[in-house]
Amino acid sequence: MNRLTIVKIGGEVIDQPQRLSSCLQEFAAIRGDKILVHGGGKTASHVSEKMGLVPELINGRRVTDAATLKVVQMVYAGLLNKNIVAELQMLGCNALGMSGADANMILAEKRAASTIDYGFAGDVRKINSTLLEQLLKLGLVPVFCPLTHDGQNQFLNTNADTIAACVASALAGSFYVEAIFCFAKKGVLENENDENSVIAAMTRESFDSLLQKGIIKDGMIPKLENAFRALSNGVRKIHIIHADDLDKVKSGLASGTVLTLV
Amino acid sequence: MNRLTIVKIGGEVIDQPQRLSSCLQEFAAIRGDKILVHGGGKTASHVSEKMGLVPELINGRRVTDAATLKVVQMVYAGLLNKNIVAELQMLGCNALGMSGADANMILAEKRAASTIDYGFAGDVRKINSTLLEQLLKLGLVPVFCPLTHDGQNQFLNTNADTIAACVASALAGSFYVEAIFCFAKKGVLENENDENSVIAAMTRESFDSLLQKGIIKDGMIPKLENAFRALSNGVRKIHIIHADDLDKVKSGLASGTVLTLV
Repeated sequence: MNRLTIVKIGGEVIDQPQRLSSCLQEFAAIRGDKILVHGGGKTASHVSEKMGLVPELINGRRVTDAATLKVVQMVYAGLLNKNIVAELQMLGCNALGMSGADANMILAEKRAASTIDYGFAGDVRKINSTLLEQLLKLGLVPVFCPLTHDGQNQFLNTNADTIAACVASALAGSFYVEAIFCFAKKGVLENENDENSVIAAMTRESFDSLLQKGIIKDGMIPKLENAFRALSNGVRKIHIIHADDLDKVKSGLASGTVLTLV
Repeated sequence: MNRLTIVKIGGEVIDQPQRLSSCLQEFAAIRGDKILVHGGGKTASHVSEKMGLVPELINGRRVTDAATLKVVQMVYAGLLNKNIVAELQMLGCNALGMSGADANMILAEKRAASTIDYGFAGDVRKINSTLLEQLLKLGLVPVFCPLTHDGQNQFLNTNADTIAACVASALAGSFYVEAIFCFAKKGVLENENDENSVIAAMTRESFDSLLQKGIIKDGMIPKLENAFRALSNGVRKIHIIHADDLDKVKSGLASGTVLTLV
């Protein structure tokens, strides 16, 4: 079974050109099949502001109305995704930038408005894994921006962590999949104010216990639930690391938090 | 030899949502392998203005400085390309949107500044035809936006007619290639003020003669030279038609101007 590495980078990398460059260098050096998933960062807000739109965030998630979606589409699929692709190409990595609409790769469903209306936000329904595997076989390196589509000509803003976990899950039957989630901290911390309190390893059981004790909280909960769902789906190992430590994972050195099912 | 149809659409289609929709429906209905190349239209200028940049055009070509290139990248690769992809997907056409950097598809060279400095404008050097053929074999429908790259992390603004002609030329050895250039007029006109004066057929020889007589002039000259270059490279037939007549070409009905080498 071939190895497949899926790396997710978010705002903490995307918003810092130098960090992004060194991260892409490390990514380009990863052997075997690989996929990059990137988040949005702050550029969409800057562009929205310049264009006179007021960005609205609820619990750190962008509320995506039609005008904002246009900007998000321009920034995620046009600016960020293509910048990453061009830089990876310079590094000899045959990147192919995609939204979820391209090659019908990620079909999603608009999230129903409940107490909060997230606007054009989507939950992943189906990954076109057959075609994704064929692209990997051609030696291509898919680079996903955090946009999916509903198959009815509607783009949907979708969390990059979720996309990475869903893509990892969808390919877990055909590859030995490891996923690496880059993060602003050095891993999952036992004490959120102490960067030296990284929890080196976590299983589903120890996660549940840390959850009960209130050590895992807030934004880390969906992040980790997302990760453990992927492990349940057959993904072998998930690393939660600081973006600067991507070289360590690549070299097999201990770093960040390693999640396994058991 | 399989048939491959390459369709190029420009501002006259891109800037009119309804015309674009009906054009995409006709495109989706074309049988066999196909590729769509789209131009930029006016949206980039609108977005530039909204963002406080002043667009500069020389002889109808956008002068692309670094700030404009960012906007162009957002609009061409993010907004227009992805809108087209999502709409084609809705129509059951497995579109894959690409810039020239994606899969290293179109390598270009920055145009040297002469009397006019076009900024980040690029001339096509190499099409990655091997990989492009492999994508077609997977049943994908590549959709190119008018951006190429230099392989050194630099995007370049590139004329969509040129991209279409270069892609057609590059695949002429492996497919029976027909290219269709959609246009604001019904074809090449003998009298530019008379839409009924369409020249039905043109060979290299008749083109030269029309050129000498001054009947072909201005913007039509590079457009047609571009087309005849593609025919010299093995492209079988080129149609220059009004975008609304795409259904006629598809059905084999006479329409617009048909260019052949002899």
